[in-house]
Amino acid sequence: MITVDLNADMGESFGPWKMGDDAALLKIISSANIACGGHAGDADVMAATMKMAHENGVGIGAHPGFMDIAGFGRNRMSVPRSTLQNQVRYQVAASVGMARSIGAQVRHLKLHGALANMASEDETLARDLYEAALSVAPDLIVMVLSATAQQDAAQSLGCKWAGEIFADRAYNDNATLVDRSQPGAVIHDAALAGQRMVKMVQAGAIITESGKEIPAAIDTICLHGDTPEAVDIARSVKAALQEAGIALKCFEGRTEA
Amino acid sequence: MITVDLNADMGESFGPWKMGDDAALLKIISSANIACGGHAGDADVMAATMKMAHENGVGIGAHPGFMDIAGFGRNRMSVPRSTLQNQVRYQVAASVGMARSIGAQVRHLKLHGALANMASEDETLARDLYEAALSVAPDLIVMVLSATAQQDAAQSLGCKWAGEIFADRAYNDNATLVDRSQPGAVIHDAALAGQRMVKMVQAGAIITESGKEIPAAIDTICLHGDTPEAVDIARSVKAALQEAGIALKCFEGRTEA
Amino acid sequence: MITVDLNADMGESFGPWKMGDDAALLKIISSANIACGGHAGDADVMAATMKMAHENGVGIGAHPGFMDIAGFGRNRMSVPRSTLQNQVRYQVAASVGMARSIGAQVRHLKLHGALANMASEDETLARDLYEAALSVAPDLIVMVLSATAQQDAAQSLGCKWAGEIFADRAYNDNATLVDRSQPGAVIHDAALAGQRMVKMVQAGAIITESGKEIPAAIDTICLHGDTPEAVDIARSVKAALQEAGIALKCFEGRTEA
Amino acid sequence: MITVDLNADMGESFGPWKMGDDAALLKIISSANIACGGHAGDADVMAATMKMAHENGVGIGAHPGFMDIAGFGRNRMSVPRSTLQNQVRYQVAASVGMARSIGAQVRHLKLHGALANMASEDETLARDLYEAALSVAPDLIVMVLSATAQQDAAQSLGCKWAGEIFADRAYNDNATLVDRSQPGAVIHDAALAGQRMVKMVQAGAIITESGKEIPAAIDTICLHGDTPEAVDIARSVKAALQEAGIALKCFEGRTEA
Repeated sequence: MITVDLNADMGESFGPWKMGDDAALLKIISSANIACGGHAGDADVMAATMKMAHENGVGIGAHPGFMDIAGFGRNRMSVPRSTLQNQVRYQVAASVGMARSIGAQVRHLKLHGALANMASEDETLARDLYEAALSVAPDLIVMVLSATAQQDAAQSLGCKWAGEIFADRAYNDNATLVDRSQPGAVIHDAALAGQRMVKMVQAGAIITESGKEIPAAIDTICLHGDTPEAVDIARSVKAALQEAGIALKCFEGRTEA
Repeated sequence: MITVDLNADMGESFGPWKMGDDAALLKIISSANIACGGHAGDADVMAATMKMAHENGVGIGAHPGFMDIAGFGRNRMSVPRSTLQNQVRYQVAASVGMARSIGAQVRHLKLHGALANMASEDETLARDLYEAALSVAPDLIVMVLSATAQQDAAQSLGCKWAGEIFADRAYNDNATLVDRSQPGAVIHDAALAGQRMVKMVQAGAIITESGKEIPAAIDTICLHGDTPEAVDIARSVKAALQEAGIALKCFEGRTEA
Repeated sequence: MITVDLNADMGESFGPWKMGDDAALLKIISSANIACGGHAGDADVMAATMKMAHENGVGIGAHPGFMDIAGFGRNRMSVPRSTLQNQVRYQVAASVGMARSIGAQVRHLKLHGALANMASEDETLARDLYEAALSVAPDLIVMVLSATAQQDAAQSLGCKWAGEIFADRAYNDNATLVDRSQPGAVIHDAALAGQRMVKMVQAGAIITESGKEIPAAIDTICLHGDTPEAVDIARSVKAALQEAGIALKCFEGRTEA
Repeated sequence: MITVDLNADMGESFGPWKMGDDAALLKIISSANIACGGHAGDADVMAATMKMAHENGVGIGAHPGFMDIAGFGRNRMSVPRSTLQNQVRYQVAASVGMARSIGAQVRHLKLHGALANMASEDETLARDLYEAALSVAPDLIVMVLSATAQQDAAQSLGCKWAGEIFADRAYNDNATLVDRSQPGAVIHDAALAGQRMVKMVQAGAIITESGKEIPAAIDTICLHGDTPEAVDIARSVKAALQEAGIALKCFEGRTEA
């Protein structure tokens, strides 16, 4: 039986400011990428989000990014490599301990924002960051953007990893995302998003705008949570997968190179 | 044979700004209270300081405070209790994980600055914060200011604790510190500091300005590291203790109520 | 003809996080208290909010608070007095210059959050902070909570000031606010809020829960903007005042002691 | 009579952390570039540094950078252009108002760190940032790195500007700085630094490592303040210039294109 995981970023509120409908998403997904205080989240938000994820049986992931709250981790920054590694260690460490304090544990790692984009283009950077994270928590499953340098990095490290595709983004023939400035780059139609995911999961491949199939490790599907339509798309994708007989469950991680 | 531990705050540099002579102090002390990024310290500083402590065989402690870098944790803040607990969890978690990433571990906890002062006056606050820390790392030895509400809190919790006195501060007859505005409140004479510590450790008591002896748990002596004379006083205290036949070693923690 | 000003706090979004419906409130009010980057707001939010206020003919005010973004300026902090004065200077300075860059100017000052609460209880603190603000912008009109130490401070300084009451809070017989834990402390009924304000403005007095009238300088009414019902209450208060023949216009400031 | 200005960055302490010997440098220089709270400096540090500069008759400059305290503005960041402009406005505004509060005024602008480096390579960026600064304070004299895109930007804007060279850095034949990894890139010899500056000021040209003379606007010489030898070099440069009959005074700014 084919299975797939559904993941979403969350715990991205900060102080008095709310973001996203985490409670609704936690009824849909199987893995939650929870901000660690670097680009968003604070100690209260982390604790509350982890508790809610744990109570819903959703796998908890550390979601570190550039340490730039005001910029939400969206700015690329020329931080020295060893500093960046320590910042990832710090954020993962905070996540692991906060989870332990509520009787839960951190299962996976997913990079955030500009740091994730940079790591998807630069295998050495990705590997350095994953090594840093694993030095804190050796059993982490690294969530990688399928068919990018992130996947190459995880494979060369020999750690457990899970491949991810996006529910609401169109792909180019080289497996990169269609630029947001192009028509059709972002899928806003909930039904369409569901159909696409069923096809890709069944094919075990990314299907591009031109119809090309690129064989890919599809262990988890990224759902977004920060737009009004996000929860609708998430529900639609889940329903479509279930109707197609695809079981939804947390990934266990693969290690093949 | 009488033994005692020597501790100092460190890892309080931040970004490009240096504070204290940690390398020199690590040759003298047996326990290091390392900032966790709340009031000082950043990921690089934490990693470097922990590594240096570990290499010197010095016990590593988490040193959380109010999350107020610009104020160095010296401002009292009316942060809601549950938020404060989560902030302590966050900082302790970061410490524990950073230590693990370099193959070391966090042995003890010591509160910093205004938060420590408030906890020394308020047993409930102290207990709430210690419980928060222990929820992340149950084996921590809690370093308490001897004969204050901090000690009461640790004893009522039944956790492992170690009692601390100051090498360079004069005491009132009720075991509180002589206010800094008073003459003689701070001991600047390295030789005098050493003699005083020998007497107190041998007596198992805080000896006040009036000569009164207050029986106290003296497991560790706090040395300061942020003044030019600090390293001299630290060396003098250590030499005086050793000459008096008092062995210097890391505390193991006591649990008696 | 009786006139009164309507004011609201705004510009309290931060980075990617939104707060309040500033655009809607700016159609209703005559004075905007705009965060300065201390407790909320960032350079983009300040610029956009000031521009919008200016285009709507709404008077711009600097709204400084404790420099504690994560705590939204709600925590009381024991910051040294001279530091606090410099922090107010810094925030007012930023406001004045940002306003100038869009061809507008800062007319008034209103303290935020915990800092405002502390200043309403402590005339010396209020005076020190007002003096700091006026050292940057000598023509500021200081908005004070009527019948509190804030008013005493402004009067003893001899600066221009404007007295403020709350549209949605009940008052005790000593002119303080009924504690939020008490029933009826916060008015959620838009119609009731409007009627109350008409009565108080016409009486030139705060009318307490017991019906007592406390003569007070009522130059401006504080509307809140951070709850769903806030905009409704704001519209209702404005309509009620206009129906009662009370003109809505920006205060000019009074100087009588 | 030839005149030249001497400038140095300062006010770069933060909270409890000190940086540089500002008091000593203020006895030597004629223009001080004072951090605005973006990359360093806080309200207390700004106020104290401005007061000290004013008392020494030293011209005050705003010194904005990326808003990244932990990274000291040394990381390049992909902040959106309009946000960057607002951040420069905010920092310049804070400087202008803080100066006014002590009876002084901001005369010039100098970009800091990574932001300055980026602007020296990108005329459009430099112009956008200078325009932002001038929208707050139209009379600012913009200090530019001579013979870089910064100078081009100031000239195309038609604002007042002053050209700057470094006392302690060697130049390539295209007027860029010799990379720090090369031998001789940084001049540590105080006497040599002084001789070089005399020659360049007298020649009205940057003199490169190969001996080539590149005609340049040399209105001010940048002295560094953050190394132990910095104050010695500063004194030596000043003495050498004075012995050569070159008068030291604040630049008035030039406007020629």
